[in-house]
Amino acid sequence: MTERQLPGYRRIANEVRAAIAAGEFAEGDRLPSVSALAERFAVTTGVVVRALEVLKAEGLVIARHGSGVFVRRFAAIRRSSPARLSRARWGTGQMIQDADTEVRPRVVDVVVAESPAPAWVAEPLGLTSGSDVLSRSRRFLVEDRPVQLAVSYYPADLVRGTRIALTDTGPGGAYARLAEQGHAPAHFTEYVRGRFPSPVEAGGLELQAGTFVLEITRHAFTAAGLCVEVNRMILDATAYILDYTFDA
Amino acid sequence: MTERQLPGYRRIANEVRAAIAAGEFAEGDRLPSVSALAERFAVTTGVVVRALEVLKAEGLVIARHGSGVFVRRFAAIRRSSPARLSRARWGTGQMIQDADTEVRPRVVDVVVAESPAPAWVAEPLGLTSGSDVLSRSRRFLVEDRPVQLAVSYYPADLVRGTRIALTDTGPGGAYARLAEQGHAPAHFTEYVRGRFPSPVEAGGLELQAGTFVLEITRHAFTAAGLCVEVNRMILDATAYILDYTFDA
Repeated sequence: MTERQLPGYRRIANEVRAAIAAGEFAEGDRLPSVSALAERFAVTTGVVVRALEVLKAEGLVIARHGSGVFVRRFAAIRRSSPARLSRARWGTGQMIQDADTEVRPRVVDVVVAESPAPAWVAEPLGLTSGSDVLSRSRRFLVEDRPVQLAVSYYPADLVRGTRIALTDTGPGGAYARLAEQGHAPAHFTEYVRGRFPSPVEAGGLELQAGTFVLEITRHAFTAAGLCVEVNRMILDATAYILDYTFDA
Repeated sequence: MTERQLPGYRRIANEVRAAIAAGEFAEGDRLPSVSALAERFAVTTGVVVRALEVLKAEGLVIARHGSGVFVRRFAAIRRSSPARLSRARWGTGQMIQDADTEVRPRVVDVVVAESPAPAWVAEPLGLTSGSDVLSRSRRFLVEDRPVQLAVSYYPADLVRGTRIALTDTGPGGAYARLAEQGHAPAHFTEYVRGRFPSPVEAGGLELQAGTFVLEITRHAFTAAGLCVEVNRMILDATAYILDYTFDA
């Protein structure tokens, strides 16, 4: 689709986005008024209002009631997988998300349940499809904003009767409990993709229409190569920067 | 936004997406005709057509001229950073993207240039902002579909007069050449985020309006901790699954 074929509000959204990217409007700046933008781009105020709705949905600008529309400060959560999942952390009773810099998401809505494993969970865990797994689902909030949904799955036989089956897994969380059972995670693989959310995910993350998520699926392995957890995380893509370090 | 507030075509897009997710329509299946879908969801054919446009933009379905709309086979490129960047690969003259499973993106439109470094490039490279950097920009195609844009930046003083300044960097690519200069990459950090593309990026990747990209920024460090490359990659999010492995 060429620029010329775009609806007017999309074209204006692109113009304002480019001006932000070029530094004409800096983080925290108030944008010119709707009428000033309409005059600048020679469009109606209605087109500008729709363009700003696009940029709000993208998380690029934010409306403050009564004071205008501002370029959002990009305060993404730095999520460093190697650092946050090191044994030095959960092995000493710390919470994994305490490694996330500056902002520490808090956990709410913990639901523990047993159910038959779907194929994408059963296969890495080495179970036959439909075997019982224990799932722990929860949401992560920063201040009052939901930023992540996560569901961890464990073979039911492995964790039934342990504190992993309780709402509060105790110091160091599920990985510390697995270690106590002789199943300490030693290696992890995370699969990352971007996609549009399902309606349930969009609801849980309070996402506006047209926004998207990062889906991370983590497999945790013991030193012996046994997969003991599959964890699927759905992240508000505007809220996170992921970082991964590795050697040549 | 609740389901009730959504425009009709968004609601129908959600319904069809859910049916695909639930397996009612499997990968490769032809969807029912527009009129059949309109009847099923009690909406006009116009609403169904717009809903299918949404799903096409998401990469979930694909129209085949004259034969209908099909659920796309998800043949994402598996991009395994630790495996593809191992010295065992580039140190023996192989191309990094040969590690990508099944599909091997080919490189086109290589442009080499010298220019002043923007701050986000200068800072990790330990240069003052505006210092000269050599940039190598290129696009990656799978068959004829663009899937990635990438620009690598090197301190100009480090690579001027080497094969890194030529279009063809030779066997093993830029990392092999850096190693020959005594600057072999030993450690990498990749920063991953999802965002909407700039108009230039959308053009280069031939993305439809409303789709999004994964942005990966890689810093390559020598064993001595010197950053010798900053590489920013813009990926069509529907074309890739990234994977990262690390230890506890």
